[in-house]
Amino acid sequence: MQGNNLNKDWTLIDGLQYSNWSHEIFSQMHEGGLNAVHVTVAYHENTRETLSRLGQWNQRFETFSDLIRPVFQPQDIALAKNEGRVGIILGAQNCSPIEDEIQLVGVLRRLGLMIMQLTYNNQSLLGTGCYESEDNGITRFGKQVIHEMNRVGMVIDMSHSAERSTLEAIEYSEQPVIISHANPSEFHPALRNKSNKVIDAIAENEGLLGFSLYPFHLKNGPACSLNDFCDMVAWTAERMGVERIGIGSDLCQNQPKSVLEWMRNGRWSKQMDYGEGSASDSGWPEPLAWFKDNRDFPKVAEALAQKGFNETELGLILGGNWVNLLTRVATASFETTTLDAPDKC
Amino acid sequence: MQGNNLNKDWTLIDGLQYSNWSHEIFSQMHEGGLNAVHVTVAYHENTRETLSRLGQWNQRFETFSDLIRPVFQPQDIALAKNEGRVGIILGAQNCSPIEDEIQLVGVLRRLGLMIMQLTYNNQSLLGTGCYESEDNGITRFGKQVIHEMNRVGMVIDMSHSAERSTLEAIEYSEQPVIISHANPSEFHPALRNKSNKVIDAIAENEGLLGFSLYPFHLKNGPACSLNDFCDMVAWTAERMGVERIGIGSDLCQNQPKSVLEWMRNGRWSKQMDYGEGSASDSGWPEPLAWFKDNRDFPKVAEALAQKGFNETELGLILGGNWVNLLTRVATASFETTTLDAPDKC
Repeated sequence: MQGNNLNKDWTLIDGLQYSNWSHEIFSQMHEGGLNAVHVTVAYHENTRETLSRLGQWNQRFETFSDLIRPVFQPQDIALAKNEGRVGIILGAQNCSPIEDEIQLVGVLRRLGLMIMQLTYNNQSLLGTGCYESEDNGITRFGKQVIHEMNRVGMVIDMSHSAERSTLEAIEYSEQPVIISHANPSEFHPALRNKSNKVIDAIAENEGLLGFSLYPFHLKNGPACSLNDFCDMVAWTAERMGVERIGIGSDLCQNQPKSVLEWMRNGRWSKQMDYGEGSASDSGWPEPLAWFKDNRDFPKVAEALAQKGFNETELGLILGGNWVNLLTRVATASFETTTLDAPDKC
Repeated sequence: MQGNNLNKDWTLIDGLQYSNWSHEIFSQMHEGGLNAVHVTVAYHENTRETLSRLGQWNQRFETFSDLIRPVFQPQDIALAKNEGRVGIILGAQNCSPIEDEIQLVGVLRRLGLMIMQLTYNNQSLLGTGCYESEDNGITRFGKQVIHEMNRVGMVIDMSHSAERSTLEAIEYSEQPVIISHANPSEFHPALRNKSNKVIDAIAENEGLLGFSLYPFHLKNGPACSLNDFCDMVAWTAERMGVERIGIGSDLCQNQPKSVLEWMRNGRWSKQMDYGEGSASDSGWPEPLAWFKDNRDFPKVAEALAQKGFNETELGLILGGNWVNLLTRVATASFETTTLDAPDKC
């Protein structure tokens, strides 16, 4: 079911989605030619709630076993591709799942949590989020957690973090750090987008920037043209290197407004916080005309090809760089075990 | 460091311990010739607290990596033996770790929880404990959990359950059920010990009974002789078959009285509950003269040999039956994954 213009040697990966998961959406991933998707397990969920989310994923892995499979190790992405299933990479957009306990990093990594953001918009126990007015950098606990994430093979994601905290995380981490879903501020100056200083540090650190297709992160919002998006990709490839970029669409499909409000407000605010929106524009943004769901990936690939990227470069941008980054950073080294058994969840 | 009289072809397993874990105790396991020990992770701990307990075990696997290793699959016991380390089999003495959520069975199995009791003395959400005056059998949720434990490869342990609940668990389970640590009531009529009806059902079900060395479960308590213990083993071997019995010492070494009180009272009672003890005998029982710690296993092996068990039978009783039971029942079948990596926790 791969889109026609996609090279079968490519491994297509979307570096962030949080949709209202269903047979329809998983089928659309197949239609769009995707081999793996990084999905969000938690925004503000604490440890106990995160386990319920992981339990829900186990249920989906059972129910939709013909369409998806879990990715516990980066190498499982290749298994997914060979099996004709979409690999699901589990991640958290916040450090709420580990609460205040260093040992929970390893516990959650064993449960498959491969990527974790240190902050989500606000100050966390680890660092400062991108919507705070002051940024005092990585905390004492944050330094411990960065070291532990490095040790157990959990990727540090600074998508929703403030600048100083991001730069310090890169400095303290012995492994590359990523921005799974954001765009260069140079292209569109949203609080969530990243300064040249940050993207240069990510590049030097051999990390990865996943381009967001969330309209609030794009020039002209929902009216952003595919050509403008591709210009941004070309500019960033030039600045960071073509090995340092990927896609992190931030696709949030079929989600009710209540989910948007949970993402923005969690349990921390009595007043409504509108994130990149406003009181007069408080809902989900209108989708882009050229990217409505997973079936539109071939369209993006086609436009990037027309922009001048060759087959090799396209393969890297559309997923190869994600595979390489995860293989370098997220290969968990547990005690040896015989934990690979027949095909059941 | 194996005890002198132990056959090197045997795999020695103790089917239950809950000690105040330390370098000293893990070293004594080596001195006693043990290859694996089933340790208790939770008595009354809820899901969140259980994760902290598992985190503490991860810390021990790091700190004492020369002495112990985790057992995620039954086959890891052979790895442990080959490496010269003691395999740690993780289990819960209660269903408190899954709270009221069916999906947590699979989540905890992935974290290595291989054995779970359905009840601990009291009524639980799944069934009735051995100290209740009435036993209404396995609950609606209990039936679901039994099925799910069968599915994901988690062993059902009825050591602290009441008779009807135990018999129903055996009836509903598609897999053998175990009593990890208790003795036949015929030998000593403690509430915690098991009627002939129960041990016959376990035998027919091809499960396993692990003999307890906890003085309250033995004839004459702390004064029980090694010869009497061996007579009980011989009687049970005759009744159940030599393939259906093992050791589950219930060794609780160096634990303060506060831990005993936690085991007995958890958070459920304002009055002190004394378990097998009494107000005038409220502490830990005196240890047996011939079984004080892990170094005494060769002594037990020697006495059983003198009782007439041959080398093959001894190998089964001292661990072989545990290996066989776990291999049949606890081989978790997850989605295929590449989750076996270098030697790190």
